[in-house]
Amino acid sequence: MNGGNVMIKVGIVGATGYAGAEIVRLLLSHPQAEIKWYGSKSYVDQAYADVYKNFFKIVEDLCKEDDLSKMAEEVDVIFTATPQGYLASVISEEILQKAKVIDLSADFRLKDVSVYEKWYGIEHKATQFLDEAVYGLCEINREKIKNTRLLANPGCYTTCSILTAYPLVKEGYIDEKTLIVDAKSGTSGAGRGAKIPNLFCEVNESIKPYGVTTHRHTPEIEEQLGYAAGKELLLNFTPHLAPMNRGILATEYATLIKKDGDLPTKAEVRAAYEKYYGKEHFIRLLDDGIYPETRWVEGSNFVDIGFKIDERTGRIIMMGAIDNLVKGAAGQAVQNMNLIFGLPENEGLLMPPVFP
Amino acid sequence: MNGGNVMIKVGIVGATGYAGAEIVRLLLSHPQAEIKWYGSKSYVDQAYADVYKNFFKIVEDLCKEDDLSKMAEEVDVIFTATPQGYLASVISEEILQKAKVIDLSADFRLKDVSVYEKWYGIEHKATQFLDEAVYGLCEINREKIKNTRLLANPGCYTTCSILTAYPLVKEGYIDEKTLIVDAKSGTSGAGRGAKIPNLFCEVNESIKPYGVTTHRHTPEIEEQLGYAAGKELLLNFTPHLAPMNRGILATEYATLIKKDGDLPTKAEVRAAYEKYYGKEHFIRLLDDGIYPETRWVEGSNFVDIGFKIDERTGRIIMMGAIDNLVKGAAGQAVQNMNLIFGLPENEGLLMPPVFP
Amino acid sequence: MNGGNVMIKVGIVGATGYAGAEIVRLLLSHPQAEIKWYGSKSYVDQAYADVYKNFFKIVEDLCKEDDLSKMAEEVDVIFTATPQGYLASVISEEILQKAKVIDLSADFRLKDVSVYEKWYGIEHKATQFLDEAVYGLCEINREKIKNTRLLANPGCYTTCSILTAYPLVKEGYIDEKTLIVDAKSGTSGAGRGAKIPNLFCEVNESIKPYGVTTHRHTPEIEEQLGYAAGKELLLNFTPHLAPMNRGILATEYATLIKKDGDLPTKAEVRAAYEKYYGKEHFIRLLDDGIYPETRWVEGSNFVDIGFKIDERTGRIIMMGAIDNLVKGAAGQAVQNMNLIFGLPENEGLLMPPVFP
Amino acid sequence: MNGGNVMIKVGIVGATGYAGAEIVRLLLSHPQAEIKWYGSKSYVDQAYADVYKNFFKIVEDLCKEDDLSKMAEEVDVIFTATPQGYLASVISEEILQKAKVIDLSADFRLKDVSVYEKWYGIEHKATQFLDEAVYGLCEINREKIKNTRLLANPGCYTTCSILTAYPLVKEGYIDEKTLIVDAKSGTSGAGRGAKIPNLFCEVNESIKPYGVTTHRHTPEIEEQLGYAAGKELLLNFTPHLAPMNRGILATEYATLIKKDGDLPTKAEVRAAYEKYYGKEHFIRLLDDGIYPETRWVEGSNFVDIGFKIDERTGRIIMMGAIDNLVKGAAGQAVQNMNLIFGLPENEGLLMPPVFP
Repeated sequence: MNGGNVMIKVGIVGATGYAGAEIVRLLLSHPQAEIKWYGSKSYVDQAYADVYKNFFKIVEDLCKEDDLSKMAEEVDVIFTATPQGYLASVISEEILQKAKVIDLSADFRLKDVSVYEKWYGIEHKATQFLDEAVYGLCEINREKIKNTRLLANPGCYTTCSILTAYPLVKEGYIDEKTLIVDAKSGTSGAGRGAKIPNLFCEVNESIKPYGVTTHRHTPEIEEQLGYAAGKELLLNFTPHLAPMNRGILATEYATLIKKDGDLPTKAEVRAAYEKYYGKEHFIRLLDDGIYPETRWVEGSNFVDIGFKIDERTGRIIMMGAIDNLVKGAAGQAVQNMNLIFGLPENEGLLMPPVFP
Repeated sequence: MNGGNVMIKVGIVGATGYAGAEIVRLLLSHPQAEIKWYGSKSYVDQAYADVYKNFFKIVEDLCKEDDLSKMAEEVDVIFTATPQGYLASVISEEILQKAKVIDLSADFRLKDVSVYEKWYGIEHKATQFLDEAVYGLCEINREKIKNTRLLANPGCYTTCSILTAYPLVKEGYIDEKTLIVDAKSGTSGAGRGAKIPNLFCEVNESIKPYGVTTHRHTPEIEEQLGYAAGKELLLNFTPHLAPMNRGILATEYATLIKKDGDLPTKAEVRAAYEKYYGKEHFIRLLDDGIYPETRWVEGSNFVDIGFKIDERTGRIIMMGAIDNLVKGAAGQAVQNMNLIFGLPENEGLLMPPVFP
Repeated sequence: MNGGNVMIKVGIVGATGYAGAEIVRLLLSHPQAEIKWYGSKSYVDQAYADVYKNFFKIVEDLCKEDDLSKMAEEVDVIFTATPQGYLASVISEEILQKAKVIDLSADFRLKDVSVYEKWYGIEHKATQFLDEAVYGLCEINREKIKNTRLLANPGCYTTCSILTAYPLVKEGYIDEKTLIVDAKSGTSGAGRGAKIPNLFCEVNESIKPYGVTTHRHTPEIEEQLGYAAGKELLLNFTPHLAPMNRGILATEYATLIKKDGDLPTKAEVRAAYEKYYGKEHFIRLLDDGIYPETRWVEGSNFVDIGFKIDERTGRIIMMGAIDNLVKGAAGQAVQNMNLIFGLPENEGLLMPPVFP
Repeated sequence: MNGGNVMIKVGIVGATGYAGAEIVRLLLSHPQAEIKWYGSKSYVDQAYADVYKNFFKIVEDLCKEDDLSKMAEEVDVIFTATPQGYLASVISEEILQKAKVIDLSADFRLKDVSVYEKWYGIEHKATQFLDEAVYGLCEINREKIKNTRLLANPGCYTTCSILTAYPLVKEGYIDEKTLIVDAKSGTSGAGRGAKIPNLFCEVNESIKPYGVTTHRHTPEIEEQLGYAAGKELLLNFTPHLAPMNRGILATEYATLIKKDGDLPTKAEVRAAYEKYYGKEHFIRLLDDGIYPETRWVEGSNFVDIGFKIDERTGRIIMMGAIDNLVKGAAGQAVQNMNLIFGLPENEGLLMPPVFP
């Protein structure tokens, strides 16, 4: 199914989780990547296509153990779609000298180890690599990404939350102290673990908030938007679970900063978005009066962004939508792989969203 | 199916919409009410149970025309589950002298006719009744409700949004200028009209914001919370459509007011809620760390409320959940009927929520 | 919430499963029953309303252990909503002398112990009670039910499958050797166990057959319809899992037996249904051209039945729908309790179906 | 987005229906096709990406009128995703001399015009083309397809129903008079028309049969399987609507024909399937004990097929699953286009199924 000159050899640790399986789906259509190692903790020696029957007659491989060192011998890049703390406990200089690592966990996203340990409640076992790790939000950190060997792939909520507000924070249009992010996610974000709260009957026909003021993506959003603001930033982030498979919608509120007594105009705000995203393939700034809906990005790597200024309250409502498994996980990971290996950034990511 | 001494005769205008059908469902189990007139615009002379087959072998009646004057001759109370503007165009002193009217539309919810005409974009044709109409949020306006003959039943979003924040606004715990309401609703709130955006394939597997800064429930929430605050109040209200039949969740954000440099404590906030809701049958103040989920109230008249103080940002997140068709429409309408006719407030409304 | 003269004391073993919780929901509105014991294996000493938050502020009790003997001391009737084999392993003469037992498992449904052991793969540990146990399909076994102390509540699929075909089998209208039952169920039928195949993302947006030719409800349907036919009967039963919480639809196919070269007419078939179901409160024989849909029975104890004769192929298609948790489990169990205790059969079961 | 030597110019009549939009999605990733004309009845002069916002920033074109004659001047192939009767009323020799036509409606699927007129209830206005039209079930009619200029793309139910049973009918393993097809479909099959029965709240949380004994796909299945059987064939086909966007599952029952008193073995049946499908790219014969689920084919052109022999009843249960919009409509249409234009049959159709 693959062809071309370069052929990147890929290993996936945690290939049997939803994010891992989405990496598989994307790479199967990628012209310059080939999966050599389907790593799994629970399904070693079982056919990968038995675990995900969508890949029947497409993937012939068996699952192998999640062994980073062995994997590094055989592949050019390793994706780790694993629980927090795992990569930090096994990463080594030796591994990084042999293969690039793109980590979908949170282990190398936060620069401040004390913040990591506070929010995640676990000790960080590889702080020596924190400095060199690059936060892989492609549209913002593109140049740094190209040269890294340890890539911290952003969280799903964070990708959506940051990109939706970034230009306005960066350009100083909003009072960063007033920022509130109310986010809604499909259930695949909860993973494939067998837990009662994720059963069909528990999720279906309901919407609920969770992790209120304590969700671990909060410091990640704060750190990255803090860089944009040029100062520390605290915000409220409230995730919600919605009865759908895929999709994240972030609805964000902030007070606009007046200049000479006037609110920024719609044109000014749009210009700020255009300045940062005008040439971005994967960010679609929606037309006036159009707001993002998760169905329009499903299955794709797009981020749809819209906004509305409220003259009455002086606030702006910024809205962004992504597919949590694509731009929020596997798609962005592949986008980062493309950047690291010098390929066109959208290679293997050109599929249009699937609707309905 | 009914029994007892008093037997209230009921007419329903718009009985073939979702809210109308929910009034039917509730009154069929109400021991002291009897539906005498199933009004409909589109299904006159058809069996009501042909339009809603759940009522097959339960309701024998045919749909009759939506004629308020004739209906007033035959019933004690009329529920109007109709589009905005309808009731104002047909209501009269004569009707009100014969029957109580409980209106599920917005025609008599807003006291200021200019606000109504601005947000609804239609002329109000019965301003002479605006003064006497009572806003039927039972837990707040109970005494006034008992003596009215024209009851404005609150909107679904507004019921949930107001009740979730009311005690803290009333007691001055939050800065009312900072209030933001991010609400999520099931699709029955959109009604039974044949519209492409409400088709299964358009709603399923997606979540979307709509009416951003312009939704008509905004001034209703502002007016009522303004009364509580004792001053005018502007807020941001953003509704979202979620892929489920029933349920509204409101996630509300506000900055807490410090006293002597300290935020209110959790116990103080809880006490404020208890002060107003401690004896309310239909309001369930959830335990610490428990937040509302729409599935826990489905099919019932309950309002579930929880909150979380964020010491880091100085904000409180207040969350409330209702069934939009029950407490957000038909259930509250029946609760209002009970109050008006001197029955126990929860008569016919004791069914527990249905799960799963 | 309850009142009246008789007050039946109820114990529930397995009150924290979906069927158990539905018994709770129904009995809370039952005027002559009171739950005294919420039995649970996994949640002993936890508040029942913590496990099912819909009952918050409605049920104050803690879960107690699943101890049938102790329970029998304190209650008049015990509902066992437990895995197969459990009741047979603990039931005793002593228990049955103290309390009636209504068993929602399969332990006493099949008269032939070898059939039980073959299909369930477990040894039956209480064969001495098989004879006296009564199969609790109320519409068919009503008289026997009234006098039993050990009631085998039918399975969800079986209730729907049997009732849909019963009159035509009984009256000899169909060739019983040609009977095929294709059934579709909501996911609550799979229980509240934490299993990957029942996760939201696995069930949502999919339909699948399972247990093809091997589902355990097969011999139960065969035994009961065999009694109706007056001879042994083998059929194909294929269950399917559908992405919805509740509801079972059975689509059944059989060849009509010609009399004097003619197929039975629609009127004759209807008359057969009317003969057996004409006075049944919970069976709704639908009008010509109307077929059952699970949404029209949701939340209620109704069975909706429709049929269509195909002159071209000589077959009849019989269709039935129930709510699997009500008529398929808890509702029928309560109906049986009513019969056993001499109450009106529909006591506590009058709630109309909930739609949407 | 496209490249290569040949570049087929495509016009789509009815591009704004669900099937039309799926053709668009597939062709956007097809290396050798380019859409030149987005035809629409309702959205002429509107941006196509306004109607399907998933294509925002991907498709720049406006919708044009549904004019077959003009279109034929500009394109090599025309897809008609239109209501029954439309193509027959506008097709002409002139058009067919200029462009190939791939028709997704039923106009040219049935060879016998009286059958068409009986089941569809409309007069056929272009009977002169019935002879040359080729029924486009690729796996069965491949060679004829390559040379046609008028291709009748099979219906969604029919594709799934026929392919699931074809080898066993063809090889004489089953008694064709006993064949029963019980099919379940997602709601996209009902199209994008604004109709109450297709609203979210009407479809969600329910399953229903419809078109019992009268569905128009019945004669299409009968005709094609009749060719396989070598004799006329009548069967029962019962479609059901399931609460999901995509997917068709067909569960098919038939009596196996004994040879020398013995049922065919599992191995024999498997060999029959292998004989016809062993080399088919898009048909996946599942392993023993594995049955199709619609989620495993979603978004792809695959047909998953499994079977189970029931020794007890002498029947076989055959099960097949497809994505109704892909193999059941747009995907098969593209597969047919590939065949007609001499491209690799799976060109542009290699995307793996999307899960979850």
